Amino acid sequence: MKFEIIKEDKETNARVCWLYTQHSVIETPTFMPVATLGTVKTMSQQELRDLGVSIVCGNAYHLYLRPGSDIIKKAGGLHKFMGWEHSILTDSGGFQIFSLAELRNVTDEGVEFSSHIDGSKHIFTPEKVIEIENDLGSDIVMVLDECQPYPVTYEYARRSTDLTIEWAKRCKKVFTLRPSSLDYQALFGIVQGSTYRDLRKYCTKKLLDLNFEGYAVGGLAVGEPKTLTTEMGGFTLELLPKDRPKYLMGIGLVEDIIEFVSMGGDMFDCVLPTRNGRTGMVFTSEGKLVIKNAPSADDYSPLDPGCECEVCKNYNRAYLRHLFNVGEYLGPRLATHHNLYFFMNVMREMRKSILEDRFSEWKKEFLEKYLANSEG
Amino acid sequence: MKFEIIKEDKETNARVCWLYTQHSVIETPTFMPVATLGTVKTMSQQELRDLGVSIVCGNAYHLYLRPGSDIIKKAGGLHKFMGWEHSILTDSGGFQIFSLAELRNVTDEGVEFSSHIDGSKHIFTPEKVIEIENDLGSDIVMVLDECQPYPVTYEYARRSTDLTIEWAKRCKKVFTLRPSSLDYQALFGIVQGSTYRDLRKYCTKKLLDLNFEGYAVGGLAVGEPKTLTTEMGGFTLELLPKDRPKYLMGIGLVEDIIEFVSMGGDMFDCVLPTRNGRTGMVFTSEGKLVIKNAPSADDYSPLDPGCECEVCKNYNRAYLRHLFNVGEYLGPRLATHHNLYFFMNVMREMRKSILEDRFSEWKKEFLEKYLANSEG
Repeated sequence: MKFEIIKEDKETNARVCWLYTQHSVIETPTFMPVATLGTVKTMSQQELRDLGVSIVCGNAYHLYLRPGSDIIKKAGGLHKFMGWEHSILTDSGGFQIFSLAELRNVTDEGVEFSSHIDGSKHIFTPEKVIEIENDLGSDIVMVLDECQPYPVTYEYARRSTDLTIEWAKRCKKVFTLRPSSLDYQALFGIVQGSTYRDLRKYCTKKLLDLNFEGYAVGGLAVGEPKTLTTEMGGFTLELLPKDRPKYLMGIGLVEDIIEFVSMGGDMFDCVLPTRNGRTGMVFTSEGKLVIKNAPSADDYSPLDPGCECEVCKNYNRAYLRHLFNVGEYLGPRLATHHNLYFFMNVMREMRKSILEDRFSEWKKEFLEKYLANSEG
Repeated sequence: MKFEIIKEDKETNARVCWLYTQHSVIETPTFMPVATLGTVKTMSQQELRDLGVSIVCGNAYHLYLRPGSDIIKKAGGLHKFMGWEHSILTDSGGFQIFSLAELRNVTDEGVEFSSHIDGSKHIFTPEKVIEIENDLGSDIVMVLDECQPYPVTYEYARRSTDLTIEWAKRCKKVFTLRPSSLDYQALFGIVQGSTYRDLRKYCTKKLLDLNFEGYAVGGLAVGEPKTLTTEMGGFTLELLPKDRPKYLMGIGLVEDIIEFVSMGGDMFDCVLPTRNGRTGMVFTSEGKLVIKNAPSADDYSPLDPGCECEVCKNYNRAYLRHLFNVGEYLGPRLATHHNLYFFMNVMREMRKSILEDRFSEWKKEFLEKYLANSEG
C-alpha cells in the first residue's frame, strides 16, 4: 500500500490523498459502501464500479459464519468470490460480536460468542481474526478491538483500552507472518478510549509504537452526544500522523463526514445510504425525502432534480413510491442506487473543492442547502 | 401496428415476423417478460433493454388497484410512469379476477370482485377494462375474457365462451371510440373454449368476424394434461389467419414455447424465468439448476458455462448460493437476470434458425441437450 498526500487545505485540516492498493487507487476523502456479507445490499458490482466506488467494506465475523472463510479462501479470496476487482477493507467484526451482548464472553485470550445464526459456539482471538482476514484476502485488514459502548466508567474504559492495545500487538505480530502472496495486505490499528481524552491519547501512542499502515478512530457514534463525537474524533485525529490514512469508523451522516474531513479524516463507512435506501428514505441536495409519503403519489419529478444519477435520469417519484407501496424489489434497489450516488458525489465535490482551494466555501454552501430542509 | 412476415419455415409452421408498434419493432417469435405491477421483478428497465427485451406485459387489474390507473394516466401513460420506451402489452386482468374464486361474481354485464388488497368492491365490465387500458396507454390491449378453469362441463364451457365472445364484441366497440391520441393502440381478441374443439372453432370464427389486430389463445396451461394443451393450442393456431400475430397466453416452459412456435405461435409470456429466478432456480443450456443445493457451495463455475450473460461473465455459483442462503437481494436479482437472458437468447437462436432454414435441426439439438438433465 502506498499513501500520497496530493493537496492540503490551507484553512482546515482537510486534504486530498491517493491510497494505492493492489486493486485500485482510492482518492480520499472517500466513502466506503458497506458490503457486510460480500454484497452492497441490492447493488451489483458493475453498478458500484459505475458509481465510482473504489473500495467496499466486508465483515470478517459475518463472512466467517456464512459462507465460511474456507469457501472464500478456496475461491481465491473475497475479490474473486464476489466478482469485485477494486479494493476491499475488512472489519474484524469486533463491533458485531460486542453487539451480541449476552451471547459473548471476553477474556484476555479473545472473545467467545454464540453465532447469531444458529447459536453455535466460536472463539475469536486476534490471531484467528487475522487468519480469517488473510483468507478473505482483503486489501485493508482491521485489527480485532473492543468497541466500547457508551457510557462506560473510566475503570472499564481503561481496562478495555488496554485489551484493545494488547490485541493490536498480537494482530500485528501474526499479520507480519502472513504468506508472501498476501504481501499486498495492509493492517490498520483502531484507536479506542471511549470519551476519555487521556485514554484516547494513551491508546494512540501505544498503537503508533506498533507502526500500523493506517489508523482508525473507533468507538464513535455509539450513542454519545454529537458534541462528544466531534470532540473525541477531532482530538484523536490530531494525534495521528499525517503520513497515514485516517479512518473514522461508522461515521455516515453527510454533515458529520464533512466536519471530520475538515479535521483531517480520510476514510468513512456507514450503512446509512444503503439501509435508508431500503426503507425508502432518500438523500437529496435539498435534504431528505421519505418516498412513501403521500405528496409523492402524483409527483412525476425525479428524486433530486439536481441529480444526474441513472435513477434520477430515468425514474420519477410517483413510480418509486408505487414500487415501495407494493413491495417490489426495484424500489429498495433504485433508492439505494440514488443514495450511494449522492454520497459518492458529495465526496467527489468535496475533493474537488479541496483541490481548488475552496473547501470552506463549498462546505458552507452545501450544508446551508442540505440542512435547510433536512428532517434531521 | 404493422405486422410483417419475414420468413416462413418450410417444414413446420414456424415463422419470423416483425411487429411494429409506436414504441419498438418486435421480432417474433418473442418472449414477453411479465411486469404485472409495472416492473419486471428485481430488474431495472435499463437491464431489460440491454437484454434485448422489446415488449413487456403489464396487468390492468393490478395496476388499476395500485397505484390506480388515474395516477398512471396523469403520468402520461405506463411507458412514462415506469420509464420504459419500448412496447407494452396489457392483459385485462380477467385471469387474475377469475383466480379470486370466492371473491367474484360474474354476470352478463361484467364481473364484480373484491380487491385482493383491501377487500374493496369493484366491477370490471368490458367497457371499464378498455377505459383502464386506454389510461395505461399500452401498445397492445387485451380484451376482457373469462379464462375457464380445467376441467369444466361442456355446458359451462359453452356459456362461458359465449360470454367471452359477447365481451370481445363490447370491447371492440368501445375501443374504436378511443381518443385519437391513442390511435397507436392495437386490440387483440382471446380465443377460449376450454378443451372442446367445436367451442374453440366457434369462438375463433366469432372473433374473426370482429377483425382484431391480433389473436391470443387463452385458457391453456390451466391444469389440463400437456397433450391437451398441445392439441388445443395447435388446433386453435391453425384456425387463425396468417396475417395476424398469434399469442399463446401463459405458455412459458421453453420446450412448450418451441413446440408452439413450430405450430405457428408468435408471442409468449410467462412468469417462469422471473418467479423461478427469485427462488434460486436457474435455466441453463444443460437443464435446470437449483442454486441453493449443496453442490454449488464450492463450485466456482458460472451458472451456465456456455452462457454469455453479465451474470455468468461476472459471478460464480458459490457466490450465488451464498446470496440466496443469506437472503440478499442480489441473489434473486442475478438469477432473474440470467433466466431472462436465457429465455431471450433461446428466442434469438430460434429466430436465427428459422431465418437460416434449419429450425427443425436446431429444435432437435437444443431439446436433446436441454431436456437430458432437466429436473422436469
